Amino acid sequence: MTAPSDAAPQDPPPFPPFGVLASERIYASPWCGLRRDTVRLPDGSQGEHHVFEISDAVVVVPRLPGGELVLIGQYRYPHGKTHWELPAGRMDADETPLAAAERELMEETGHRAGRWVALPGFYPTNGISPHYAHAWMALDCERVAEASPEASEQILVRTFPRTQVEALLDAGLLADGFTAIALMYALRWSDAGRL
Amino acid sequence: MTAPSDAAPQDPPPFPPFGVLASERIYASPWCGLRRDTVRLPDGSQGEHHVFEISDAVVVVPRLPGGELVLIGQYRYPHGKTHWELPAGRMDADETPLAAAERELMEETGHRAGRWVALPGFYPTNGISPHYAHAWMALDCERVAEASPEASEQILVRTFPRTQVEALLDAGLLADGFTAIALMYALRWSDAGRL
Repeated sequence: MTAPSDAAPQDPPPFPPFGVLASERIYASPWCGLRRDTVRLPDGSQGEHHVFEISDAVVVVPRLPGGELVLIGQYRYPHGKTHWELPAGRMDADETPLAAAERELMEETGHRAGRWVALPGFYPTNGISPHYAHAWMALDCERVAEASPEASEQILVRTFPRTQVEALLDAGLLADGFTAIALMYALRWSDAGRL
Repeated sequence: MTAPSDAAPQDPPPFPPFGVLASERIYASPWCGLRRDTVRLPDGSQGEHHVFEISDAVVVVPRLPGGELVLIGQYRYPHGKTHWELPAGRMDADETPLAAAERELMEETGHRAGRWVALPGFYPTNGISPHYAHAWMALDCERVAEASPEASEQILVRTFPRTQVEALLDAGLLADGFTAIALMYALRWSDAGRL
């Protein structure tokens, strides 16, 4: 039983939304968009707010029956480095979060999961974007194919014991935010017997 | 002593960077920028890569001497909701990560820390942006002033026992990615006696 002090507090009372006075489209493409809204601030003054638009995403924590976790070594063009990450990617139009998670797991690692559990999702950068990421735990994974990344993806698939993944995490080497957040939820929930 | 299997594996071998054939500036402003690069993909074909540019950021986990944590209830314009978050914000030009952390902690919560410890940082969205966030633990915090948010910020400051913050986290109510990731590092490192 949960002690009263352990119950989750409610969200704070919602602030009234800014009024939108104008919205200027700066850029639109199938990949991303950018707009600049003119808003009425709480003190009555006018302000500008940029909003960066990209489709929502999924990130997957693949666990094998023996407890090992699957990571991918991935090159990221924006900063030029190659890091260990969890499989992740954007949702296609009309795709459910679970279907996107199954697809990304297969494309990027060649694995299929026996059971899926939704972990808490998150807004990676909610100061500038409504972009949302759905996080999934993929349990009882098995490798059924070779990874089949897109031409723009460079990927190395590797399985690690949990201890080594935690060592990577605490050394700050899992520098991709999607990876760190979904992995830490998975570790917490595993330790709490929720997975 | 750390068992050999607990040592952090090295980063994967770096993939060769894409060659940049052209770079088109779509937008520039003091707040953010967007460009579209034409790149040579590993299979020899040409591809396009958008890069969203914003200055680096800090996020702070403020802990009081008694172990309570300070959160802020904050309205976020891009998705319109008000959530509990950790204090965070962008670094000013020529500002160090620590100076930015001290400033954001004071502006958004009115607290000053007795001791600072760097937590692992992260790239919130490294598929599309080199944007990087520095995470800090602010220990032995005391409230020395009222919060002084900017006109565009709507903030409510509140102190919670750790158990309630963990309840918020596991209920998925800390939906801001910066908050979830920095908080989970802080909880891990506290439990490991590193803070």
